[in-house]
Amino acid sequence: MKKLINKPEDFVRESLEGMAAAHSDLIKVHYDPTFVCRTDAPIKGKVAIISGGGSGHEPMHAGFVGMGMLDAACPGEVFTSPTPDQMLEAAKSVDGGAGIIYIVKNYSGDVMNFEMATELARGEGIRVLNILIDDDVAVKDSLYTQGRRGVGTTILAEKICGAAAQQGYNLEQIASLCRRVNLNGRTMGIALTSCTVPAKGSPTFELSDREIEMGIGIHGEPGRERMDLKSVDEITEMLTLKLIEDVGYSRIVREWDEDKGEWVDVELVDPNLERGDRILAFVNSMGGTPLSELYLVYRKLAEICSQQGLQIVRNLIGSYITSLDMQGCSITLLKLDDEMIRLWDAPVKTPSLRW
Amino acid sequence: MKKLINKPEDFVRESLEGMAAAHSDLIKVHYDPTFVCRTDAPIKGKVAIISGGGSGHEPMHAGFVGMGMLDAACPGEVFTSPTPDQMLEAAKSVDGGAGIIYIVKNYSGDVMNFEMATELARGEGIRVLNILIDDDVAVKDSLYTQGRRGVGTTILAEKICGAAAQQGYNLEQIASLCRRVNLNGRTMGIALTSCTVPAKGSPTFELSDREIEMGIGIHGEPGRERMDLKSVDEITEMLTLKLIEDVGYSRIVREWDEDKGEWVDVELVDPNLERGDRILAFVNSMGGTPLSELYLVYRKLAEICSQQGLQIVRNLIGSYITSLDMQGCSITLLKLDDEMIRLWDAPVKTPSLRW
Repeated sequence: MKKLINKPEDFVRESLEGMAAAHSDLIKVHYDPTFVCRTDAPIKGKVAIISGGGSGHEPMHAGFVGMGMLDAACPGEVFTSPTPDQMLEAAKSVDGGAGIIYIVKNYSGDVMNFEMATELARGEGIRVLNILIDDDVAVKDSLYTQGRRGVGTTILAEKICGAAAQQGYNLEQIASLCRRVNLNGRTMGIALTSCTVPAKGSPTFELSDREIEMGIGIHGEPGRERMDLKSVDEITEMLTLKLIEDVGYSRIVREWDEDKGEWVDVELVDPNLERGDRILAFVNSMGGTPLSELYLVYRKLAEICSQQGLQIVRNLIGSYITSLDMQGCSITLLKLDDEMIRLWDAPVKTPSLRW
Repeated sequence: MKKLINKPEDFVRESLEGMAAAHSDLIKVHYDPTFVCRTDAPIKGKVAIISGGGSGHEPMHAGFVGMGMLDAACPGEVFTSPTPDQMLEAAKSVDGGAGIIYIVKNYSGDVMNFEMATELARGEGIRVLNILIDDDVAVKDSLYTQGRRGVGTTILAEKICGAAAQQGYNLEQIASLCRRVNLNGRTMGIALTSCTVPAKGSPTFELSDREIEMGIGIHGEPGRERMDLKSVDEITEMLTLKLIEDVGYSRIVREWDEDKGEWVDVELVDPNLERGDRILAFVNSMGGTPLSELYLVYRKLAEICSQQGLQIVRNLIGSYITSLDMQGCSITLLKLDDEMIRLWDAPVKTPSLRW
């Protein structure tokens, strides 16, 4: 294993210490339990947005803490869910009295722990709603999930809901918006190489020099299919058509019903992508793929979207939701409406996203 | 070779086509000869800042074209200097009547071609001054250079001089500022793995699983020393101390003398870094090293600077001057003054740097 690290067991903590040293104008890092929050939190009367998940996907989530995006992030160990006490302490620390949205990627550990944290926070008198992101069209169930995995749309939901919170939306409005972003977003990824988890020290999976993994998960979990290496145009076309052709995905999610005071099952169905739709196209590096190659992906993606009558009106290209040092990329398409566009364009100031 | 590409010979052009498709609000890409320029150029009365060099270092330089930074960038083929006609056409395209600064990294091909372009542009009545960046303390001469190589400080000079131009500085003021940034900046890098040039298809050099190359060049050219893999703290300490201890570097540069109407040799000497100095610390990924590891570097760097009495007042952490998919990093320290800080903080809006 060749990495710029000290002891594998110190990797997450030391990386956060580096972040804290670098961005003390924007974020504070708390330890035991570990969470990252805005320096100016809590903000009275503002809904707070919190996310979290295993480390190894940087800059997600801690890199998105700041004005116009997250109020706090809870990093777990590498590829391991954070614990409910991290989420609870983060909530207590950034609660401005208007409630908390937990944005939760659909992995069994995260879902369970965020639900527990939701109940703990409610027990302390903090209103919390948690919204699930499950946008990965590659597989229905996987090693870490029941149902689809949560991937690229998470970043977009964090930006859009963060802007909404900054502009004074209330808890229910943001929950509804976040749910809409999730339903409107879809992602699929591909790996050219495996990632290497520091504590393990060897690649998570083996791919020959001529193989790629289509539909890879962000923890290196298997995708849809292993196939021969192809040109970027062919790979991009396969990913993009899978995204466009995905229709009517339905899932049952557990949501908190305020009136009943209990969890209820709700069915949610993705809207289809249709000719004339305006979309945000997000091309993401898995960590080891350089920007120059992402632009090759974007080039073909833009061509296909144009052929399919989809209008790319916003884009994001870079390393935002990664899998350590994995080479590969993911494509996320988010169907936009006027409100989402306005919120996407709103100012943001975080360590890894700002405009 | 595993990359997201089509034919190697189309790599640069197709990557630029992707950029053009993604960032049509900020940049225009011209072909034959190839250069990238601001959509709003030329700007009457503003000095134009142009840089360029071989491709494979993205986002440098094309990713830094836009408001408050570069007016144009001239990308060559991978690791190959652009040609004088690219530089000349870029100059003609963005000239607003107040003159042009060429920011040139010190590689023999770049230096020669930018000097030729300077003379061609002068022949067309455009005032041009070219300023050399030679900040890499690793080696005095290398495969591609006489004297030090130009690396990380280039980005900082582009940002600071771009802001100065945006604020109405004249040609001589910007030339003087750019020279000061170069003298005040110093960089050294390290590789964990080689890069792979698309047209070659195999690694530029071989490193065993236990070796690193200290003082690596951004084309994979040899550094100071090959050594056993070490912890990030040890690596960061070696790099940082080399930067801090580098004193009194002197070089002769060719500069255009307006009064004499000819090139003259000028001796320029770096100021030393001293206790109490304010610095900008720039931790850069070579392309394949993820952000989480850069924060480990920054953590130790901040500790050492503090011990040495250097005050980090600004920082930049990410993939800005890369070497395709190489794993590794570089550290740049720039000694700051009030003027540079003010210009660093000024608004910038480019594909890869914005605030």
